[in-house]
Amino acid sequence: MRKAVVLLSGGLDSATVLAIARREGFACYALSIDYGQRHRVELKAAACVARALGAVEQKTISIDLAAFGGSALTDHNIALPTQGVRKDEIPVTYVPARNTILLALALAWAEVLPAQDLFFGANAVDYSGYPDCRPEYMRAFENLANLATKAAVEGRKLTLHTPIIGLGKGQIIEQGVKLGVDYGLTVSCYQADADARACGVCDSCRLRRAGFEAAGIADPTRYV
Amino acid sequence: MRKAVVLLSGGLDSATVLAIARREGFACYALSIDYGQRHRVELKAAACVARALGAVEQKTISIDLAAFGGSALTDHNIALPTQGVRKDEIPVTYVPARNTILLALALAWAEVLPAQDLFFGANAVDYSGYPDCRPEYMRAFENLANLATKAAVEGRKLTLHTPIIGLGKGQIIEQGVKLGVDYGLTVSCYQADADARACGVCDSCRLRRAGFEAAGIADPTRYV
Repeated sequence: MRKAVVLLSGGLDSATVLAIARREGFACYALSIDYGQRHRVELKAAACVARALGAVEQKTISIDLAAFGGSALTDHNIALPTQGVRKDEIPVTYVPARNTILLALALAWAEVLPAQDLFFGANAVDYSGYPDCRPEYMRAFENLANLATKAAVEGRKLTLHTPIIGLGKGQIIEQGVKLGVDYGLTVSCYQADADARACGVCDSCRLRRAGFEAAGIADPTRYV
Repeated sequence: MRKAVVLLSGGLDSATVLAIARREGFACYALSIDYGQRHRVELKAAACVARALGAVEQKTISIDLAAFGGSALTDHNIALPTQGVRKDEIPVTYVPARNTILLALALAWAEVLPAQDLFFGANAVDYSGYPDCRPEYMRAFENLANLATKAAVEGRKLTLHTPIIGLGKGQIIEQGVKLGVDYGLTVSCYQADADARACGVCDSCRLRRAGFEAAGIADPTRYV
């Protein structure tokens, strides 16, 4: 069985991607990152999701991106947006270089396992302003990865899978439901409370709720 | 004064690069990473070097790459090599994806500062087998960085400087001495003791010692 590293935040998108990787027959190694995000409670959700969807192993790695700041997700002095995501600007929830850091860590684990496949739940539709969610960024990372490692030099090429990058939230949910994802285990809210209940008003909650409506599926989210 | 992020390990190469960046007129922000390396004492050296060479600020970020293992530098069960670096193989001191992780973190800080210049003391001569020390890897990272960030999207392009990538150890030392680097502050040894004294037998010590000989400069290293 081929191994894959799956970046798993504990949110809706990455849970779906884990289910897709499993359906494709991969033995999945779920990697979660405690980077100083406000919604650290998502990491507990990640552990539950990894178990529910049959990951072989889950690791959580800590790195304090709050030391750099520059994002509403890591700096409590920057207010969380609740007015909807605009198409023409990069939201304050963008975390500088986060996806590059996440992918670099996934690459490290993949090389050691070894695994030649990375799965990443980036989405270019919901947050169209995030530079590191675009398909051209993903291609550039895959290119880098195939120069970066001993494995690649020895001919074991790495593939970066981004199976939901072009899907709307409703389509993601439809696909996940077919694959048996229990979205009640996932946390999307940027300010979920310690019991993982969602605020219902932040942009992430709004997108998620609209996704369930679009899919015509009952929203299992627990709101405060 | 333009700002630059300089990756500073506490070793000889990165100290030289910090001196080069200062000479080029940059206000330097030194970034050191505690990644679970055996020779963590190099981090104390990094703090001294940053001060001696006039960095504006130094940050140390922790990330436990020993959680992945796969290298003699992070796994104490893998013996350190002492027989010299061979040109035709990748040494066991290679740390999977380390340079990608280091550069990703430097990119994060650069974006927040903001800075458009990164300096990295990679060297393609001494450790010719390290895949992530090659010029083509550096170009791929720069390409990625210029797709990854909000800054790049807004037109503030990032430049990755690798001023010693093609130099031999002796040439690096000659250049550093001209710029006033006190190599007595730096630590290269993979198993330096708590007092930062070098073993004198590991491959890193051997390369360093040969560098001082090649440059015809007295070796200031304190050996056990």
